Amino acid sequence: MNIRVLTLFPEMFQGPLNMSIIKRAQEKKMLDIQYIDIREFTDNKHKKVDDYPYGGGAGMVMTAQPIIDCYQHVANQLQEGDKPRVIYCSPKGRVFDQKLAQELSKEKHLIFICGHYEGIDQRAIDEVVTDEVSIGDYVLTGGELPAAVMIDAVARLIPGVLGQAESYQEESFYCGLLEYPHYTRPSNFRGLEVPSVLLSGNHKDIDRWRREKSLEITLKRRPDLLEKATLSDEDKQILKYLKK
Amino acid sequence: MNIRVLTLFPEMFQGPLNMSIIKRAQEKKMLDIQYIDIREFTDNKHKKVDDYPYGGGAGMVMTAQPIIDCYQHVANQLQEGDKPRVIYCSPKGRVFDQKLAQELSKEKHLIFICGHYEGIDQRAIDEVVTDEVSIGDYVLTGGELPAAVMIDAVARLIPGVLGQAESYQEESFYCGLLEYPHYTRPSNFRGLEVPSVLLSGNHKDIDRWRREKSLEITLKRRPDLLEKATLSDEDKQILKYLKK
Repeated sequence: MNIRVLTLFPEMFQGPLNMSIIKRAQEKKMLDIQYIDIREFTDNKHKKVDDYPYGGGAGMVMTAQPIIDCYQHVANQLQEGDKPRVIYCSPKGRVFDQKLAQELSKEKHLIFICGHYEGIDQRAIDEVVTDEVSIGDYVLTGGELPAAVMIDAVARLIPGVLGQAESYQEESFYCGLLEYPHYTRPSNFRGLEVPSVLLSGNHKDIDRWRREKSLEITLKRRPDLLEKATLSDEDKQILKYLKK
Repeated sequence: MNIRVLTLFPEMFQGPLNMSIIKRAQEKKMLDIQYIDIREFTDNKHKKVDDYPYGGGAGMVMTAQPIIDCYQHVANQLQEGDKPRVIYCSPKGRVFDQKLAQELSKEKHLIFICGHYEGIDQRAIDEVVTDEVSIGDYVLTGGELPAAVMIDAVARLIPGVLGQAESYQEESFYCGLLEYPHYTRPSNFRGLEVPSVLLSGNHKDIDRWRREKSLEITLKRRPDLLEKATLSDEDKQILKYLKK
């Protein structure tokens, strides 16, 4: 997978995406991430990339020209027929979730456009963006952190990126429920005990305990997820019991 | 505000939180962020901080001891009576939103605990965490990016951190609707025109156009937000018209 990130602040990505799994995926050539500085594409002789909003209001708006020309530069390097997904990170967008991460992990080319300040000129969005995406209902300083979050979520789903020991099958959102609690050694830590069923060696009991805990935590914290989750008859019975 | 981040990967925060607004807030002494390496607190002679999960399953679990001792080290530096909010970044948590960002921006002390691998021993959560928080319904490699996202969202709400020109009053989620589109110069860019109302100088028309666009975008993309938004009678009329 090829990922190109168009940003005014390429150095913001130094830390978060040079670690562990993402770094390894790049070393294994499964993932090629490049950061392109939008400012290098501005026609403005003072290298300006923003201006006041038409109609007034606080904040500056990024101008269309450097963004569109930066995008063109990246698009020109694609092979004929390649259709990149062009993602603009914006609080107005479709809300990013595990399903969209899975969808994007099957693409060959992803281009992320990171806005800053009050946002980018709508004409740049209309001209080049295929997906306007938000990572959640909160306001951030720029699109860089959202891009890093999406890249992390997507990259770990590319086949071969996660090792066997990191299998994501049991993680939250994979089967629509929140995950059960984890415990590791020692079994008694300063008087705090691990639930005894986990030490029993009885895998049927352990599976049932974990499923119950998942259902219990999801019911308590995110009942909205239960509607979409695929539940067995046993799950439904457990839920009925928990609701009492 | 004092923020302490407990993590196995302090270097992940180099890029994202050393930029623009957050950097300026730190220089102005409005914000003091420190990263503490959990690994320095492990009792294990091989500096191990994780182990296999009790009950089996893929992935490694971070052990309770280094996390709890790292937390104690940080808590011991607080003044008597200081009650820090201790946030564990986890997909199981309450979903982070602008309201929680506003709530956290009023605190004096925030401590973020970043898990990695399959998660952290539940006993560490039970002992020290006050808030388990998720930034969205997707799976990430660790808690570092979520912590950076939350710190960015919270820090910009501390009074004085944003300059006048960056006022957040009109931003998405502030009044419960998605934001209207932005345009800046030139008014005609390669044949693409700015909506003429924005060039009219008539502020009443401009305000109405922007409100209509906000309502239109919210209705189209996030109708769930309309239920919680505070709408005027005029807004309700516009919505009625848009729904036709």
